[in-house]
Amino acid sequence: MSISWVHDFADGNATMRDLLGGKGAGLAEMTSIGLSVPPGFTVTTDACRHVMNHGEVPSDLWSQVDEAMMRLEAQMARTFGAGPAPLLVSVRSGAKISMPGMMDTVLNLGINDRLLPVLVEWSGDAHFAHDAYRRFLQMYANVVLGIDGEPFQATLSELRERRGVPDDSQLTVEDLTEAVERFKKLIADAGCVVPEDPREQLHTAIAAVFNSWKNPRAFAYRRINKIPDDLGTAANVQTMVFGDLGEDSGTGVCFTRDPATGDRRPFGDYLPRAQGEDVVAGIRNTLTLDDLGDLHPQLHTELLDVMNTLEQHTTDMADIEFTIERGKLWVLQTRAGKRTAGAAVKIAVEMAHEGLIDKETAVTRVDPAQLEQLERPRIDAKAAGDPIAFGVAASPGAAQGVAVFDADRAVAARAEGKRVLLVRQETTPDDIHGMDAADGILTSQGGKTSHAAVVARGMGKPAVTGVAALAVDNKRGYAHTDTVEFSEGEMITIDGTTGAVYLGSLDLIEPEETPELHELLQWADEIRTLGVRANADTPEDAAKARAAGASGIGLARTEHMFLGERLGIVQRIILADDDEEREEALQALKDLQRGDFVGILEAMDGLPVVVRFLDPPLHEFLPSLLDLEHQMVDRVRARVSADDLVSTASKVARWQEDNPMLGLRGVRLGLMLHHLYLMQAEAAVDAVVIRKEAGGNPQLEIMIPLVAAVEELRRMREMIEGVIAAKEAASGMKLEIPIGTMIELPRAALTAGEIAEVAEFFSFGTNDLTQMTFGLSRDDAEGLFLRDYLEQRILTFDPFQTIDVAGVGRLMRVANQEGRASNPNLIVGVCGEHGGDPASIAFCREIGLDYVSCSPPRVHVARLAAAQAEVGTKVEETGG
Amino acid sequence: MSISWVHDFADGNATMRDLLGGKGAGLAEMTSIGLSVPPGFTVTTDACRHVMNHGEVPSDLWSQVDEAMMRLEAQMARTFGAGPAPLLVSVRSGAKISMPGMMDTVLNLGINDRLLPVLVEWSGDAHFAHDAYRRFLQMYANVVLGIDGEPFQATLSELRERRGVPDDSQLTVEDLTEAVERFKKLIADAGCVVPEDPREQLHTAIAAVFNSWKNPRAFAYRRINKIPDDLGTAANVQTMVFGDLGEDSGTGVCFTRDPATGDRRPFGDYLPRAQGEDVVAGIRNTLTLDDLGDLHPQLHTELLDVMNTLEQHTTDMADIEFTIERGKLWVLQTRAGKRTAGAAVKIAVEMAHEGLIDKETAVTRVDPAQLEQLERPRIDAKAAGDPIAFGVAASPGAAQGVAVFDADRAVAARAEGKRVLLVRQETTPDDIHGMDAADGILTSQGGKTSHAAVVARGMGKPAVTGVAALAVDNKRGYAHTDTVEFSEGEMITIDGTTGAVYLGSLDLIEPEETPELHELLQWADEIRTLGVRANADTPEDAAKARAAGASGIGLARTEHMFLGERLGIVQRIILADDDEEREEALQALKDLQRGDFVGILEAMDGLPVVVRFLDPPLHEFLPSLLDLEHQMVDRVRARVSADDLVSTASKVARWQEDNPMLGLRGVRLGLMLHHLYLMQAEAAVDAVVIRKEAGGNPQLEIMIPLVAAVEELRRMREMIEGVIAAKEAASGMKLEIPIGTMIELPRAALTAGEIAEVAEFFSFGTNDLTQMTFGLSRDDAEGLFLRDYLEQRILTFDPFQTIDVAGVGRLMRVANQEGRASNPNLIVGVCGEHGGDPASIAFCREIGLDYVSCSPPRVHVARLAAAQAEVGTKVEETGG
Repeated sequence: MSISWVHDFADGNATMRDLLGGKGAGLAEMTSIGLSVPPGFTVTTDACRHVMNHGEVPSDLWSQVDEAMMRLEAQMARTFGAGPAPLLVSVRSGAKISMPGMMDTVLNLGINDRLLPVLVEWSGDAHFAHDAYRRFLQMYANVVLGIDGEPFQATLSELRERRGVPDDSQLTVEDLTEAVERFKKLIADAGCVVPEDPREQLHTAIAAVFNSWKNPRAFAYRRINKIPDDLGTAANVQTMVFGDLGEDSGTGVCFTRDPATGDRRPFGDYLPRAQGEDVVAGIRNTLTLDDLGDLHPQLHTELLDVMNTLEQHTTDMADIEFTIERGKLWVLQTRAGKRTAGAAVKIAVEMAHEGLIDKETAVTRVDPAQLEQLERPRIDAKAAGDPIAFGVAASPGAAQGVAVFDADRAVAARAEGKRVLLVRQETTPDDIHGMDAADGILTSQGGKTSHAAVVARGMGKPAVTGVAALAVDNKRGYAHTDTVEFSEGEMITIDGTTGAVYLGSLDLIEPEETPELHELLQWADEIRTLGVRANADTPEDAAKARAAGASGIGLARTEHMFLGERLGIVQRIILADDDEEREEALQALKDLQRGDFVGILEAMDGLPVVVRFLDPPLHEFLPSLLDLEHQMVDRVRARVSADDLVSTASKVARWQEDNPMLGLRGVRLGLMLHHLYLMQAEAAVDAVVIRKEAGGNPQLEIMIPLVAAVEELRRMREMIEGVIAAKEAASGMKLEIPIGTMIELPRAALTAGEIAEVAEFFSFGTNDLTQMTFGLSRDDAEGLFLRDYLEQRILTFDPFQTIDVAGVGRLMRVANQEGRASNPNLIVGVCGEHGGDPASIAFCREIGLDYVSCSPPRVHVARLAAAQAEVGTKVEETGG
Repeated sequence: MSISWVHDFADGNATMRDLLGGKGAGLAEMTSIGLSVPPGFTVTTDACRHVMNHGEVPSDLWSQVDEAMMRLEAQMARTFGAGPAPLLVSVRSGAKISMPGMMDTVLNLGINDRLLPVLVEWSGDAHFAHDAYRRFLQMYANVVLGIDGEPFQATLSELRERRGVPDDSQLTVEDLTEAVERFKKLIADAGCVVPEDPREQLHTAIAAVFNSWKNPRAFAYRRINKIPDDLGTAANVQTMVFGDLGEDSGTGVCFTRDPATGDRRPFGDYLPRAQGEDVVAGIRNTLTLDDLGDLHPQLHTELLDVMNTLEQHTTDMADIEFTIERGKLWVLQTRAGKRTAGAAVKIAVEMAHEGLIDKETAVTRVDPAQLEQLERPRIDAKAAGDPIAFGVAASPGAAQGVAVFDADRAVAARAEGKRVLLVRQETTPDDIHGMDAADGILTSQGGKTSHAAVVARGMGKPAVTGVAALAVDNKRGYAHTDTVEFSEGEMITIDGTTGAVYLGSLDLIEPEETPELHELLQWADEIRTLGVRANADTPEDAAKARAAGASGIGLARTEHMFLGERLGIVQRIILADDDEEREEALQALKDLQRGDFVGILEAMDGLPVVVRFLDPPLHEFLPSLLDLEHQMVDRVRARVSADDLVSTASKVARWQEDNPMLGLRGVRLGLMLHHLYLMQAEAAVDAVVIRKEAGGNPQLEIMIPLVAAVEELRRMREMIEGVIAAKEAASGMKLEIPIGTMIELPRAALTAGEIAEVAEFFSFGTNDLTQMTFGLSRDDAEGLFLRDYLEQRILTFDPFQTIDVAGVGRLMRVANQEGRASNPNLIVGVCGEHGGDPASIAFCREIGLDYVSCSPPRVHVARLAAAQAEVGTKVEETGG
């Protein structure tokens, strides 16, 4: 039984991607629903695999190809390689998964010296015919023969210059004739030959497509993207149609709905007497679809029919490329149309209302990342000039204001009613009030988890960090790059979505929540099973999170509550000379903490609030030794005594660590300096009592960070349970306060079964878990090598944005399974930054977590992504 | 069918530990081999479990106990609680696994007011009888009734003071009579009563033993040591015998061989007319066994028989407690005798030669940790005074020399022929030549993996680090604690095995390798399947390792080769202003590195040498910013320009990291600054060519550190393979150089299957793997909390000494399995410090690794431990 290595487009459909590749299946599908697609056929991936396995094409391949060409000639009433109506074809590769590094396209196969005059005659257009020949030679030489393309481009440049015209279409027939001759010489000089025989042209092009599957770039791409090497590619052979064959020819692109607004009206461009690339090049002014209607009412109606058919068939807004050749409409390609975030939301909701798609499909039609942009002010791309510098896109959205280089002055400027951008080398806890006063933050140092970045994201403010090209002199209130400078008081604008920094005040586009978005998120909530909580440290953020639809607080960090004006109290606790001094400071801090907790519990009344006890190394709250030394230098220079600094430095030195991330943090601090955690426990439990007495429904949960061994959690739990018992006795109330832990160290994940015995809940701290699993500090790595790693694709994804499934994810899976096995009532969530990342959210759902928790501005994103995870992967794009 | 809750000693043996507990099984075993053990019986663990499960004793328990007592009375021809010959008994707990926190011992049960005169009459010794009563009351009150023991002690103190005697045995009968009365009052004041009825005394004591299984301390101990809660304990009831009942009574301790030398001769102490605790207290001078022979030739012979029987029976050197009561010899307890390391080796080898044990058993008879001590000079305990301070026992062995506070001066002092102890706050790479010149290192800062500790262990030199009580002023050449001080040039002695620091020159005992040790290690090699390699960075260390029996170098660190005088070259490479300067420095370093590698390959000719490419963060090679600032302060004070320092500081700042352990290290450095790794590859491959040309058999392997993702190793491998191919072409030789990787990040372990595809070997870097898995920097943790964690038993073991099986070990197991599954030829070893730890070695063998690699001084230890792991756990100790 002989195998069919060739499938006519008319014999296939969209389900045959394995055999026909993506492009072939798309062309077959459009053909099958009756659209006028230029006919052709696909040489199957089976044939490619045969070549890979046997080192040669199947023995009957060329006969099948030649038969298919005869069918094509008959169907088109043209002749391959001969007149009077010559048939030209294109050859394109098309794997199941679209892949760079492979042979792309050769157009106009079938042309040769003998056919050239025939083509001139048939088209009545010598320029067209010579240009077609020139293109064919150029593409065949480069793509099939592998000859360097540069001399071909140089030849055309030279001819254009000689003729004094800006583009190839304005070259004369003589010019093009010379180009053809010179191209032939270039090919001969390379020791190659372009076959005259059209069939040989076709066979060699198909073979080149198959061979390109094995080229090193394609191999490397597949290795990095984990695409199996044995898929193979298909080769598509398609009749050429031409939009530049007279006044009744032309080419265009159209969308079934408005890609900018989402409005339900056809939208497009048409260019008479042109080829596709002329539309894209934008050299001539295009016409609208209405203009096309005026010119060719019949074709216009036909095109609207095609658009309607494709939208109904693909159930999505379609982007369609079409060509009119001598009054006949051909559809070349269609795909889901790119659209703005707003249009995506509107189209999805309206299509669902129209009954074209169901709600499950509607929620998959909006990219969550796009949604996030929709919710921040953004820079009007048309209005923006060139950025002066780029840094880390640390917290999305655009912001602008007068540059202020000091936190106190930022507060003052804000008080004068100014919009402020805080500009610092890097921020510290001392700058919190200034960050609070600012509309955005700009730093010259630090990465995505620098102090500036984390606090800005928590506050929902745009931030650009680590702008290495910017030298910031905070003392003098001045910053500069190599070419520009700005001083305090000058307007600047930052784009936290792209990392760009601009001088001056750019036009910003403010976000708005449309009714469509509201409805779409409602549908998402109906669909999703994964809970969405928010990370919030203040009553204001908690309220925002609740308004955005969060079902609780998954992470209330207490360390941020220790900053700003309270920093002095915290330093007194740590550096106290005696117990009395420490006790007094602790008491003061407890009163403040109690107020913090009452506020958050009130804002989230009835919903869970997970309070994490103090996590970072203590010396984050202490002055830096290097700073103290700097100050000493200044004092000595000024001949002023520095004794007090020396004394402080010696106390601070006691707490110095070489690797604070791996040091005295979290529960370790709680066990070693237990007065701090006891204070926090008392403040938290007091807050519950206060809220209950006020008639509220506080749902406090206490979370212990950085547990590596079950015994740490057990002891801390006993300590906290002691506080709860005492408060129950004092208040006469029964207090239900679950106690759980972060899983943020590999060992915690690996011993989760034990830990779950003394925890009511787990929350994966995926930031730290990623750092420890990779042995990689994000802050240090971003400056020194992480970006290079991503650019060079040593890592194919940023593990601090998307959960590393192979490493970190494996630990999470183990911890979730073994934790639940030992404690079936365990609640398990995620509160790292990954909680707002769609791919990570899908992973969390896949392994069966209960919820994700993200920053308030990402709650919408998370709700949508959780619903998408439920529905499954996005519907695959249709079309060529 | 009724259950036997009670087993007479005569009815059991050593195999019945589950039922009789450890102590009961030991007493039964001695009875069964015919030794004269004071008769008695064991109330079984079944009875204890019954109490736990039902809340009460089995209904027939007391009747069985009473029947056993009647058998005992008959056997001893004495009466429990009555004359003329009264029977007194002891009650002791005895679980399967020895366990603190449980009820221990009550002696002299059966005594009461009525029996006291009977006992006086029977013994003819009123003092003895009253003292026995006093002891009984005191123990019963404290242990059974749970009354605080302090007032009882206070009463005795008061009586001793009044009488003006130093110990209780010198109290008069009147004093003891008063003590008895006052004890009774203390008990009554506590609301308790001591039963007069001997049977009731016995029953309550047994019940107390069972209940003590459930006391909180015992619970906590079992939890921490993972002992199941449902084992239960047994209670042992044994006839009291007395060594102070006249001239033909006495008590003693003996060993079947000399515990100090291992010589085959009986050895022991005897004290006539005494109780066991008198021997221990050392108040009276004891007699030798020969003296006993003179006094009681018959008993002496009998004792020698007992010793012989026990040694033959236990096949080990036995430590025996015995009592002679009125001319009758009783054996109270036996266990394997404690012995010095030298004695352990000698006894094991000789017993094997005698045919008493086989070689497999012989290798289990020496504690590897003890062996390590045997190989270092040690302090003569008798000669040592009080240490002036303690620090971290960073590198074992004792060392002494004149204190020198500066590396250059240390070299100078050494050149004058002095022994030197280098004393520093902490060491840096700048101190290497001074460390090399010193006999030992003492620092006031830093833990077990501080620079000083790591380098000292690598050099095999004793070191004590982190002596917090010692203030070191390196500039002034002076150090002091709160009470003493010493200056440069004064003799000091350190003990790196204990962490002690002494003033002056103490007597040291030098190590020697005995023929017995040599033979024992030969046997170990015959037995073990696990390979033992050494970590060595120099030809000298490599030669030492080879002499000690290492079968290769598992880790040759190249970073130490970058230190000392080469540091300047390395700094030039990193801070070079232009490529030319860098290239020149690289070339210079390559020449030196080539020499390093040639030397090591020569020393290990024919054996594998795994060279690890540069691992630590670059700025370990750079001056510290804080130091530079310090210097700036000094310069400014002296009004000298500091511009050069400012320039250096700004270059150095570029490489600063907040958490260098998690930063630009290892393969990351190799990929980002690939000229460094390329230089190393060229030097290494050149060295192989040079050695081959010299007729040698170099077995170089290249190891890439800190791989987190397979792509890192793949790219580095391609780079190195390029170097190898070029050198093969140039030399015309075929070079076989395996390339492998450290597995020292959790992610490497979790993705080992992928990584093994491009690695010929894995080597677990358990130091880093432990740090990352726990999220714990050992250096930082040791100073701030790790010691507290261990003391408070939050961690029950130091994971930097012994592999954490639950976390780190689990990762190793996964990596080993999945690595070998994907690459069956993979060689897998360990090169962290755990490679020299016996428990970790056993784990490595259990999971199927090929070899461990340790520092040269631990090679003997590792050879022995690997053999022990093969044989299985140590033979359990026998006896009471």
